[in-house]
Amino acid sequence: MAKEFRVTPWEVRGNVDYDKLVRQFGTQHITAEQAREIEELAGQRSRFLDRKIFFSQRGLSEFIEAHRKGKRVALYTGRGPSGGTHLGHLMPYYFTKYLQDAFGCDVYYQLTDDEKYLFKDNLSREDTAKYSLENALDFLAAGFDPARTHVIINTKAANVLYPLALDVAKRVTYSTAKAVFGFDDSTNIGSIFFTAMQSAPAFLPTVLAREKNKKAPPVPVLIPCAIDQDPHFRVTRDVAEKLDYPKPSLIHAKFLPALKGGEKMSASDDSTSIYVTDTPKQVAKKVGGAFTGGQATVEEQRAKGGNPDVCSVCAYLSYFFEPDNEKLTERLDAYRRGELLDGENKAYLTDKINSFLKEHNERKEKARKTLEKTLLC
Amino acid sequence: MAKEFRVTPWEVRGNVDYDKLVRQFGTQHITAEQAREIEELAGQRSRFLDRKIFFSQRGLSEFIEAHRKGKRVALYTGRGPSGGTHLGHLMPYYFTKYLQDAFGCDVYYQLTDDEKYLFKDNLSREDTAKYSLENALDFLAAGFDPARTHVIINTKAANVLYPLALDVAKRVTYSTAKAVFGFDDSTNIGSIFFTAMQSAPAFLPTVLAREKNKKAPPVPVLIPCAIDQDPHFRVTRDVAEKLDYPKPSLIHAKFLPALKGGEKMSASDDSTSIYVTDTPKQVAKKVGGAFTGGQATVEEQRAKGGNPDVCSVCAYLSYFFEPDNEKLTERLDAYRRGELLDGENKAYLTDKINSFLKEHNERKEKARKTLEKTLLC
Repeated sequence: MAKEFRVTPWEVRGNVDYDKLVRQFGTQHITAEQAREIEELAGQRSRFLDRKIFFSQRGLSEFIEAHRKGKRVALYTGRGPSGGTHLGHLMPYYFTKYLQDAFGCDVYYQLTDDEKYLFKDNLSREDTAKYSLENALDFLAAGFDPARTHVIINTKAANVLYPLALDVAKRVTYSTAKAVFGFDDSTNIGSIFFTAMQSAPAFLPTVLAREKNKKAPPVPVLIPCAIDQDPHFRVTRDVAEKLDYPKPSLIHAKFLPALKGGEKMSASDDSTSIYVTDTPKQVAKKVGGAFTGGQATVEEQRAKGGNPDVCSVCAYLSYFFEPDNEKLTERLDAYRRGELLDGENKAYLTDKINSFLKEHNERKEKARKTLEKTLLC
Repeated sequence: MAKEFRVTPWEVRGNVDYDKLVRQFGTQHITAEQAREIEELAGQRSRFLDRKIFFSQRGLSEFIEAHRKGKRVALYTGRGPSGGTHLGHLMPYYFTKYLQDAFGCDVYYQLTDDEKYLFKDNLSREDTAKYSLENALDFLAAGFDPARTHVIINTKAANVLYPLALDVAKRVTYSTAKAVFGFDDSTNIGSIFFTAMQSAPAFLPTVLAREKNKKAPPVPVLIPCAIDQDPHFRVTRDVAEKLDYPKPSLIHAKFLPALKGGEKMSASDDSTSIYVTDTPKQVAKKVGGAFTGGQATVEEQRAKGGNPDVCSVCAYLSYFFEPDNEKLTERLDAYRRGELLDGENKAYLTDKINSFLKEHNERKEKARKTLEKTLLC
C-alpha cells in the first residue's frame, strides 16, 4: 500500500498519488485535445505533454482560446531561491520556453527571495538575493527570448509588486490563509502576507499594458508550475474576480523524483539531486548511486527483468532526458525484459545529462550578458 | 464616573484617562528633568512639554543621552493618509519641528498609504496616494529643514522599506500580532503584515548610514507620535533587539479633543474638526458650534463661572493656540470666575486659528517646491 503523501507549497512528502491530488486540489487533467492544441501552436510535440509530466490544469482551454482569438497573453512562472538550480527546477523552465514559442508571448519569472527568507530560518536576505541572480541565469539559459522575458526579484521589484499585493491582501482573510496553507499562531506575519506577493505577477501584464494605454484589454496569463504551488493560485484566482482581472490559468507539473527514490528532488539534500554546477564526474557518481528497479544480481535481472516504474534512472529518462518517444519505449521494454541492465542504463543517462548540462551551462554563460536588461525594477 | 475608553491604532473611543493609559500601555510619564533637558537643547520652551500635551515616553533619556554624547540621532513620525489635514494632525508636526531644532537631526516622515487602503473599505489606492502628497505638504509647512527631511510614501518607497519590513515580519508571530492589535480570523492578511512596514523607518537611519559606510555606528531614533500608535512601536522595540538595532525611543502626545467634546478629532467627521483647507468663515462657524464649559445663560455664567476642564475652546487654546503660558492661565482663571464669556473666548480662538492657518497655508504653498526632493524613493 502507498504511504500517505502530503503536498503543500512548502513540503512534498511521501509517494505522490497524482490522480488523488487532482481530486484533492480540484484541478482537471490535461485532455488529449488540449495537449494537441498546444503542440499544434508550437509546431512540435512536447515530451512533457506526451508523457503527462505536465498533467493537470485549471482554465487551460480559456487561455488557449484567448490566444486563438488574437488576444495578447502572457506566461508567469517562478522559483523560490533557496539554493542552486537542480534538474527538478530546469524541467519546467524548458517546458515554459516551449510555451513561449507556442504562444509567442512575454514570460514573467518571479524569484520569491522574500518567501525563502521568511520561511527558512537558516537563510539570510543576502543568501536569497545571491541565489536569485544565480537562479535567473539558469532560467534564461533555457533559451527564452530576452526581449520578451521579465525577471522579477521580489525585494528588488517591490515598488511594482507591493501595491498589487495590497490589492490582493485586502481581499484575503486570515481565515482563508489558514485554511489554504495550514498557518497557525506561531506563523510569522510575513509568511501570512507572502501569498499576496506571489499573486501579484498574475495581474502585472494587464497593469503594465494599461500603464501604456488606459483602455488596453486585460491580458490572460498562464502559469506553468509544479502542482505544489496550486494553493497560492487558488487564492489568486478567487481574488482575480473581485479585482476584475482575468483568472490566471494553470498548467501543473509532476515532481522530478529524487535520485534515491521517493519524494521530489530537494534543494537541501545534495546527494539526491543533480545540480547544474555538478561536474561530469559528480553526475556519474550520483547516477551511479541512484535507486533503480533492478534485481540484486545481474543473473537475476537477466532472468526476471527490472521494474521501470520504481526506477529513478528510468524516471529521469522518461521525465526529461530521452526526448525520443520510440527510443524511450524500446528502452523501458528492454529493461522490463531483463535485456537492459542498470549499469548500461545509468551510463546512458549519465551521458545524456552531461551533454545536456554542458550545453545548458554554455547558454547560462551567455545569459550573464542579457540578465541585466530582463530585470524588472 | 468616566465612561470606558478604548485606544488602539485604529480606534480612539470615550474620554481617555491618560494616567490609566500610561499604566495600561506600560509607558512612563515625561519627567520635569527630561522636559528641561529638551528645552535646554532647543534653546526655548515648548508649550507642548510645559502643558504635558506630549506627556508620555519610552527610552527618552537614552535618546537625549546619545545626542549629548555627540552621536548622530534621527526623528521618525508619520501619518495615515485617510483624508485632509486637521489641527489634530498639525500639533505633533509642529512639536516634531521643535525637536528637529533641538536635536539638529534628520526627520523621517512616513505616509502609510498601504495601511489606510488595507484598513478602510471605502478607500482606494488612488485615494490614499492623493492624500499622501497633500499630507506631506502640511508636514513640510511646519517648517522642517528640507535638506534634513525625508518623506516616505510606503507604496512608492517599497523597494527600500519592504526588505526591512521582512526583517521585522520574520520575527513577529501571528500570536503576537493578535495579542497586540486584536486581530481575528476575519482580518485581512495585509493588515496583519502592516505593522512591519511601520517598524521599518525606525531602522532606516542606521541602514542608510551603513550603506555609505559599513562601519557607521547605529543611529538612535526618537518617535514623536500620538499615544494610540504605541502598540506598533512596542513590537518595533522588541524586534530591534533581535536585529541588533537600537530600540527606538518614543514621546507620546495626547489627542487634540473634538470640537464638539469627547474623543479625538476625526478625519472622517467634518464638523468636529478644523481642516487646514477651511475658510476663515468655516473656522468661525465650527468654533461657534463648539462644546464649551459655559452655563445656559450669560447671567448664569457671570454668576457661577465656566468650567475650562470640559471646554473644547479652552482645550484648543491650551493644547495649541495660546502660546503664552501666563496669558493662558489668566484666561482660564477669568473663564472660571465668570468674567470671560464663551462668545469672547470663541472669537479669540477663531482669530488665533485663522491667523495660524493663514501662515501655515503660505508655508504650504512654498513647500510644493521642495516636496519632490524630500521624497525617499
